[in-house]
Amino acid sequence: MNRITAAIATVLAASAIQCAQAADSSAKTPSMDEILAASRPAEWRELDPQNTLYMQLPAGRVVIELAPRFAPRLVANIKTLVHSGFFDGLSVSRVQDGYVTQWGDAEQVQKFGTAARSIAPEFEVKDGSALPFDALPDHDGYARQSGFVESFPVGRDGPHGAAWLAHCYGMVGAGRDNDPASGNGAELYAVIGQSPRQLDRNIALVGRVVQGMEFLTSLPRGHDTMGFYKDSEMRTAIVSMRLAADVPASERTPLEVLRSDSASFRTLVAARRNRHDDWYLRPAGHIDLCNVPIPVRAVPRSAPAS
Amino acid sequence: MNRITAAIATVLAASAIQCAQAADSSAKTPSMDEILAASRPAEWRELDPQNTLYMQLPAGRVVIELAPRFAPRLVANIKTLVHSGFFDGLSVSRVQDGYVTQWGDAEQVQKFGTAARSIAPEFEVKDGSALPFDALPDHDGYARQSGFVESFPVGRDGPHGAAWLAHCYGMVGAGRDNDPASGNGAELYAVIGQSPRQLDRNIALVGRVVQGMEFLTSLPRGHDTMGFYKDSEMRTAIVSMRLAADVPASERTPLEVLRSDSASFRTLVAARRNRHDDWYLRPAGHIDLCNVPIPVRAVPRSAPAS
Repeated sequence: MNRITAAIATVLAASAIQCAQAADSSAKTPSMDEILAASRPAEWRELDPQNTLYMQLPAGRVVIELAPRFAPRLVANIKTLVHSGFFDGLSVSRVQDGYVTQWGDAEQVQKFGTAARSIAPEFEVKDGSALPFDALPDHDGYARQSGFVESFPVGRDGPHGAAWLAHCYGMVGAGRDNDPASGNGAELYAVIGQSPRQLDRNIALVGRVVQGMEFLTSLPRGHDTMGFYKDSEMRTAIVSMRLAADVPASERTPLEVLRSDSASFRTLVAARRNRHDDWYLRPAGHIDLCNVPIPVRAVPRSAPAS
Repeated sequence: MNRITAAIATVLAASAIQCAQAADSSAKTPSMDEILAASRPAEWRELDPQNTLYMQLPAGRVVIELAPRFAPRLVANIKTLVHSGFFDGLSVSRVQDGYVTQWGDAEQVQKFGTAARSIAPEFEVKDGSALPFDALPDHDGYARQSGFVESFPVGRDGPHGAAWLAHCYGMVGAGRDNDPASGNGAELYAVIGQSPRQLDRNIALVGRVVQGMEFLTSLPRGHDTMGFYKDSEMRTAIVSMRLAADVPASERTPLEVLRSDSASFRTLVAARRNRHDDWYLRPAGHIDLCNVPIPVRAVPRSAPAS
């Protein structure tokens, strides 16, 4: 084969690939419901009660999955605070539209007991090579690579570089002042708008809301600086905050998360990257990290013994 | 200068640039307040009452700027509907958490009068070369280029390709069924969560909420399919929807938008790409299209004649 035939062969091969892609993108992509209905039980991971928080607001329960792999000292400190009843009777003090809802000890009046007031920053894991990283194929403007670690959205600086939780919708972090060590878990926030990824590596995320986001997003907005309430009467009370393990089994919310290392999750990502169905006419061929849905469902009841 | 000295000179010049950049990124970036305080009056554009909608909800007024450059037929149809009082007494029928709030004629019972029921799709402008495009320097996963046209977020397929409004937080679109021509403006939606950019070029956007987002975002979430309310009692009534031009001048909300072709807007984008101050330790060096704030303020009162 001479140079010219080789070149032609390359062009033909490339156009064959393009045709295959065109054919593929004109096929209907499965819906999320269809993908989840076809998933196997082993592709789901039950929430660990030792790493699950329940925040009871008057309107309902917010369920938060903690991520101790990324912020071990902060997560331990939050558990210590929760054990002592630190948050009970405190309130949601800040709702900044399109940004965050924040709650906890805004006045810094609560007793810390054995919990730490200052914690060395856990904004990233310096060497992410030991983390089980499920990469997305898409370019990410805020990280060299993006993907998931145990179904949490993560950015990383390559396979041996730093890795960090990403500020996607529903992620929960520990508020801090200018001192990077001042975030101790006494004030927590959840992202309620467009992902503020500029916060990545500047503040520690500690987990993610897996159920009850609406109880944080449908609150009245605050109109003082940064969305704090001018009038403290506007605050929503925190009835209680508990570790799921400390709640009787009958009062828990049994949830499971689709594993990001599962075939069904990969199918879901592929379908979302290339939506094409009775409604979607033009697939994006791309998905941003924070646009990937991370399915959560009630743990199916086991079939009764017969 | 021989090749080697030329190469060394190039390296030295490059490292000089890098040092300048390093020095620059360690300098404090100005805050949005500082940038806006230093802006000139001519950098702002007053909203055109002929292209501004007021939707009155019980909790307050939502102000929407229309974008007739991108969806001329739909915008004209919406104005026809608004003139006829079409929306008055209808309601917000759908609030899907993290996605959209939708309002209008969900039951399709209203009379259309002279308005059209079917409109040829306006999902993109085929040739965007005539649009005044203020490009962002950053990579965008959903478009070859991203930037702003008259302060609306826009994606485009290069300087002579198609251009389209982007589904960022607060953008307003015309709901449609599977038929691409079925979006007629009788049902409108606003983005209330992470930007669903996969909708770009699949449905027509018609404008943007410039004030009053909280009246759309703080509503209770719907729990039927797609976030529609199961119980119609949950719906929020639309008191009225008016074109600003049809409202007496004394009852208007005089607002102005920072022009995206202004030096102050470019300064703001640069500052947001590289936040570094008493709180931000690590600038992202990047900004996503939908993370760029588009400042809106009350039109300053002219100084009284003396």
